[in-house]
Amino acid sequence: PDATAIAAATARNGQLTKPPGALGRMEALAIWMAGWQGTDKPRADQPQIVIFAGNHGVTARGVSAFPAEVTVQMVANFAHGGAAINQLAKAFGAKLDVHALDLDRPTADFTEQPAMSEAEVVAVLRKGFEAVDPTAHLFVAGEMGIGNTTVAAALAAALYGGTGWAGRGTGVDDAGLARKEAAVAAGLARHAAVLSDPLQVLRCLGGREIAAMAGAILGARMARVPVILDGFIACAAAAVLEVATPGALDHCVAGHLSAEGAHGRLLERLGKEPLLSLGLRLGEGSGAALAIGVLQGAVACHSGMATFAEAGVAAGG
Amino acid sequence: PDATAIAAATARNGQLTKPPGALGRMEALAIWMAGWQGTDKPRADQPQIVIFAGNHGVTARGVSAFPAEVTVQMVANFAHGGAAINQLAKAFGAKLDVHALDLDRPTADFTEQPAMSEAEVVAVLRKGFEAVDPTAHLFVAGEMGIGNTTVAAALAAALYGGTGWAGRGTGVDDAGLARKEAAVAAGLARHAAVLSDPLQVLRCLGGREIAAMAGAILGARMARVPVILDGFIACAAAAVLEVATPGALDHCVAGHLSAEGAHGRLLERLGKEPLLSLGLRLGEGSGAALAIGVLQGAVACHSGMATFAEAGVAAGG
Repeated sequence: PDATAIAAATARNGQLTKPPGALGRMEALAIWMAGWQGTDKPRADQPQIVIFAGNHGVTARGVSAFPAEVTVQMVANFAHGGAAINQLAKAFGAKLDVHALDLDRPTADFTEQPAMSEAEVVAVLRKGFEAVDPTAHLFVAGEMGIGNTTVAAALAAALYGGTGWAGRGTGVDDAGLARKEAAVAAGLARHAAVLSDPLQVLRCLGGREIAAMAGAILGARMARVPVILDGFIACAAAAVLEVATPGALDHCVAGHLSAEGAHGRLLERLGKEPLLSLGLRLGEGSGAALAIGVLQGAVACHSGMATFAEAGVAAGG
Repeated sequence: PDATAIAAATARNGQLTKPPGALGRMEALAIWMAGWQGTDKPRADQPQIVIFAGNHGVTARGVSAFPAEVTVQMVANFAHGGAAINQLAKAFGAKLDVHALDLDRPTADFTEQPAMSEAEVVAVLRKGFEAVDPTAHLFVAGEMGIGNTTVAAALAAALYGGTGWAGRGTGVDDAGLARKEAAVAAGLARHAAVLSDPLQVLRCLGGREIAAMAGAILGARMARVPVILDGFIACAAAAVLEVATPGALDHCVAGHLSAEGAHGRLLERLGKEPLLSLGLRLGEGSGAALAIGVLQGAVACHSGMATFAEAGVAAGG
């Protein structure tokens, strides 16, 4: 981030017509945006949302309440404007791009072999990296992929250890949850040799849309575009970067705490306090998209308010 | 609320292209909006924000970090578009109206006599009632009034009993906080005879902008316009209605939990779970205005999404 812009934005914040600190966390958010955008008056009126969709071999293990063909059906729904994320993108003035990643060719079942080859994971990382519009004011990476809460749980377990990372996802019953936990355990056992290498973890246990999200978060960093992280799956993708390079997510804020059981635990590992906590568990970037409104509000206040001097208002004492 | 619209909206919610419940609290919010607006597809794109400003005799007790003339200066700032609420109104497409209520004639110091006469309190209640645009999709009542966290604390103490309702407001030190607590105690002692009558409590311990907010919340109820409650002061105004008539706030949602110490306690009394918790303590309706974005997102999803049948997506099982 740009230290000069942070200093200028901090000074500006102190002069705005409000009691010091009265906008709470909104003030820090605006200054953080200023640092990444390199200006004392950041903007948030042109956000970009990118959804990556992928299919997963591990669905053969009965880990989802929905059939795998829903991934491609939902991609069609995105194209026709019928999904939740379409409505949220419109509500907050965001550009929405959708990348379907080889949906007819699911990744390999990670309980049996690596989910992706090295060439495959590099290709989707690059696809994600290049999906970021460097002129966007804010970036949200969303996902669609039946079975991907199991994949995200495997990544979290591999990166941070421990058990209990699997959750209800789109709504599995107790037996489904047990199958998810078994698949995660089997995946970790199968790929035990690579668990200390975050990029190998991503290749062996991840998925195309998750690797693409990681690439996009990295691409946003290079372009100095602030990122709003979505739920459990987006945070698992982000965690690969953070474990590989601590500080890699300094340009990211947590959009929300989702209802997926282990998301709070993952946010704690990432050191991120969520902006919203409304029990969403949809994916598609929906929780992060809803949080665009919070950042738009924060930036609107910071960049648009009058100073005490401009308004002729007496400062407190 | 309209039971037919609620039933229709609930049925619609169950058919939208998402796993059941995946939009969390957003689903209940959209259905609640449907009930008050009397349609299965509610809207939130035309919100109204009204700010009421008043001055308070109790400022003579040294209860604020800011001089009383800041009230009128901030009203000028609202008129010129320089305040936080102007930026938030613009960001969320809200109409903003400002009513300055006899600023050159503060209410009486409630530690010595009733803050308002019966005629005065009726006049400002009516002013608030009539300030609501019945065609608005959502309503936010905000306030500006140096000294009014002390007034709100006195109302809360009178309505609910107990001590510790006074807080830091715009930023008083320990001595200022002690003066606020003393003023509240003196006010309650002075008006002990009327504490069981919420409207007399409003007259004796309230203020013009607070009574106007109460009138506006009532006006919105009559017009079936859903309301987003702001912070401690707005909730104290709302509490007068709730204590007078339990259920009077069924058309209201709590926009946020503010940093003012006793706001959480007041929300618990009102049985309201806040949508946001970002440490705001500015007033002006700012926290509620920020929450407009959440309701716009909820309503956009509910009213704009495709159903499973429309989109040709397989439902879960």
